[in-house]
Amino acid sequence: MISPRTPSGVLELLPPEQIAFQRMLDSIRSGYERFGFLPIETPVFERSDVLLTKTGGETERQVYFAQSTGALEKARSQDGAEETLPELALRFDLTVPLARYVAEHEHQLTFPFRRYQMQRVYRGERPQRGRFREFYQCDVDVIGKDELSVRHDAEAPAIINAIFADLAIGDFTIQINNRRLLRGFYEDLGIGDPQAQAAVLREVDKLDKRGADYLRTTLTGEGFGLGVDVVEQILAFVQTRSTGHDDALARLDEVSAGSAGSEELARGVAELREVLGLVRALGVPEDNYCLNFSIARGLDYYTGTVYETTLDEHPELGSICSGGRYDDLAGQYTKSRLPGVGISIGLSRLFWQLREAGLIEASAAESTVQVLVPQVDAELLDDQLALASQLRHGGINTEAVLDGGKLGKQLRYADRAGIRFVAILGQQEVADGTVTLKDLRRQDQFSVPRDEVVSALRVELAQPLV
Amino acid sequence: MISPRTPSGVLELLPPEQIAFQRMLDSIRSGYERFGFLPIETPVFERSDVLLTKTGGETERQVYFAQSTGALEKARSQDGAEETLPELALRFDLTVPLARYVAEHEHQLTFPFRRYQMQRVYRGERPQRGRFREFYQCDVDVIGKDELSVRHDAEAPAIINAIFADLAIGDFTIQINNRRLLRGFYEDLGIGDPQAQAAVLREVDKLDKRGADYLRTTLTGEGFGLGVDVVEQILAFVQTRSTGHDDALARLDEVSAGSAGSEELARGVAELREVLGLVRALGVPEDNYCLNFSIARGLDYYTGTVYETTLDEHPELGSICSGGRYDDLAGQYTKSRLPGVGISIGLSRLFWQLREAGLIEASAAESTVQVLVPQVDAELLDDQLALASQLRHGGINTEAVLDGGKLGKQLRYADRAGIRFVAILGQQEVADGTVTLKDLRRQDQFSVPRDEVVSALRVELAQPLV
Repeated sequence: MISPRTPSGVLELLPPEQIAFQRMLDSIRSGYERFGFLPIETPVFERSDVLLTKTGGETERQVYFAQSTGALEKARSQDGAEETLPELALRFDLTVPLARYVAEHEHQLTFPFRRYQMQRVYRGERPQRGRFREFYQCDVDVIGKDELSVRHDAEAPAIINAIFADLAIGDFTIQINNRRLLRGFYEDLGIGDPQAQAAVLREVDKLDKRGADYLRTTLTGEGFGLGVDVVEQILAFVQTRSTGHDDALARLDEVSAGSAGSEELARGVAELREVLGLVRALGVPEDNYCLNFSIARGLDYYTGTVYETTLDEHPELGSICSGGRYDDLAGQYTKSRLPGVGISIGLSRLFWQLREAGLIEASAAESTVQVLVPQVDAELLDDQLALASQLRHGGINTEAVLDGGKLGKQLRYADRAGIRFVAILGQQEVADGTVTLKDLRRQDQFSVPRDEVVSALRVELAQPLV
Repeated sequence: MISPRTPSGVLELLPPEQIAFQRMLDSIRSGYERFGFLPIETPVFERSDVLLTKTGGETERQVYFAQSTGALEKARSQDGAEETLPELALRFDLTVPLARYVAEHEHQLTFPFRRYQMQRVYRGERPQRGRFREFYQCDVDVIGKDELSVRHDAEAPAIINAIFADLAIGDFTIQINNRRLLRGFYEDLGIGDPQAQAAVLREVDKLDKRGADYLRTTLTGEGFGLGVDVVEQILAFVQTRSTGHDDALARLDEVSAGSAGSEELARGVAELREVLGLVRALGVPEDNYCLNFSIARGLDYYTGTVYETTLDEHPELGSICSGGRYDDLAGQYTKSRLPGVGISIGLSRLFWQLREAGLIEASAAESTVQVLVPQVDAELLDDQLALASQLRHGGINTEAVLDGGKLGKQLRYADRAGIRFVAILGQQEVADGTVTLKDLRRQDQFSVPRDEVVSALRVELAQPLV
């Protein structure tokens, strides 16, 4: 006998949790569709030569390769075959598959191409609490051909706002920045060289962990040799957080006024100004977004607007939804220039974090099953099944008990399983042409005519439980 | 530059097809939930030693193994490491993962455990038209502990009926048989040995392709040596198809009357009789199911009721939904006896077949986007975005045009993309406090007050297009 066990580093859920997880996936899907994005799915594996054109370092080392038994045996039996990569590799994100998809199907797509994609990705991480080797990413991107107006950058905060309001996991703040503004700011300070900028940004990123004094010492010290006043300007800059829409615009005015004339900075400010205006036009409450000049995201990838999202009550979770603007999605596959902007929600990790923080237990308690039809009397099984069919035809998720047993036990099962209603059909009900409905949540019970049971339950289910 | 291309043997879809595919997935999910089944998902990979306990032959040869770069390098650098299997393998169906799941979480699950699972599975098939190396399976099973009443076998036809009625891909027939009845029938004919039975069944399975004369020659010939009358009895038996509920019961009476006394046959007849009665109680129209004594399914796996489903107008597609009853789900992982019954829809293959047969083009024409808000006047962008937000808040999937361009071009885009409505907000509409709604499907246009646009569109969207 083999011990049944999941591999390490995966998030496998019991049904109540799976239901809560599925509800979050559905909310995100519905949010993406609400904003007019179209679904795509790509295969779990890509050709290795296609997947691994651009990556390097950590990511490439974490890639999973897939080989069928036949391919494995062939590789093992042939001299030299071991030197070549296996033909297939599992996707490690949804961005490279998107690039491949758009480049491959370029002439069949309409641009701007608005797509969402919610699938699992794979990374050969060392097993570690909260680190997964398989996890869901829920991505949404809009891809232009040749150009894509900065206006599109305003949709991401509106999407984030709609989805996280719907998920109801607490207040959140969408933090917005712009890579051009960052670049321009450092140019103005005389740090124009991209590598020098990257080195400074890496140190600045440690501000939260190491504190301002560490930064002062490091940046004025050997290797950087920045002036004390320059470091103070950097510190003031990266600690900028706006406190409302007008304040955000005022912060941009300040940054412009303080500029030594960098065009990049001016362009970054102009982009942010346009984005903020449209974010407001899209109805995002001003409490839910702010400027945060410390946000940099991936140093190589993003080129304009960047976003991070944090839960106000749980900043320790880090960013729960991030993304930004990039200049060219698929330069490795096509000569067409494909600028884009997008965001990603890492749902497996978020779900795990929320569960750890005790924030999803309530939603996990309610089953997808809405009504249980117990077996009250074995002689009435046909009637009970007809009742179950009636409920199902009415669009109500219904479990019919087929094995029998005591009614009390069946009711306890419904209660423990998070099934809210029980529809009882015994001899008395059959004689009266009624059904007895028990509401286990409200601990209430009432009788309805048999032919009104669907409409009665629909009314009950439509009322929110307080 | 690398040529962007998908691996062979996968079904990657463009957005209109993906929308049609997603609608089918949603219908199936909704059907499974309507019958009170709970969702689970398992990781794409299992530990190889866990996955490959039971399989052999063709399936095992088709398994994909997954190795991270690190594991691959380690295997290649160590002597002897190549002899062992890689640690992880991709699931080749959803049954083995279900067995592992139920055995692993046995003490946290409630039995009968009713679960559905809709995920992709992987097989290293030789690339071939209509054969996929990655494809969706949509499974639903109920698992008992120690025992599971045959009543549960009646739910599968009811689920199939509900889902395929909802999918609206044409009339279908659920064909029902019972392995005990088959076994008993052959026992009665003196073919009691399981291997001899299996050999006869393999030949009988060729009836459609090779014809009755081939069977007569083969089964009376060397190797089988059956009597001419025995072969005629087999031919008559396997060609039995009932033509309605009462006819099905009459066929069972006939088989019983003709039995030489096999207990297995009697039990198979009794089970089918009970199943048929409950299928009727569950409201399945009698045109949609029949007895078909030629259905055998997997020879090793199924033990009682078995099902296949065919499209009446497209029998050449073969079975589009199959399954049956099995005695013990997870004997390789647990000492608990876990009998179950379930069905599976191979959706990737079905979708491909339906597309080939021209049966899904209509549904593919309608976008998930319900309304386009075009950019009529750049000065009114903020108002147009506010309108888009209003529609989205009202639950309507809305794309807002952000790049501008001529209105005619934007309308043509909506039409080609399958977006039914366009909500126009120009200077005139702003002055009047109205929105002009264009229905591109009905080629109709009307004006509604701005604050009634959501309710007006909801009414339109709720009306079926004829």
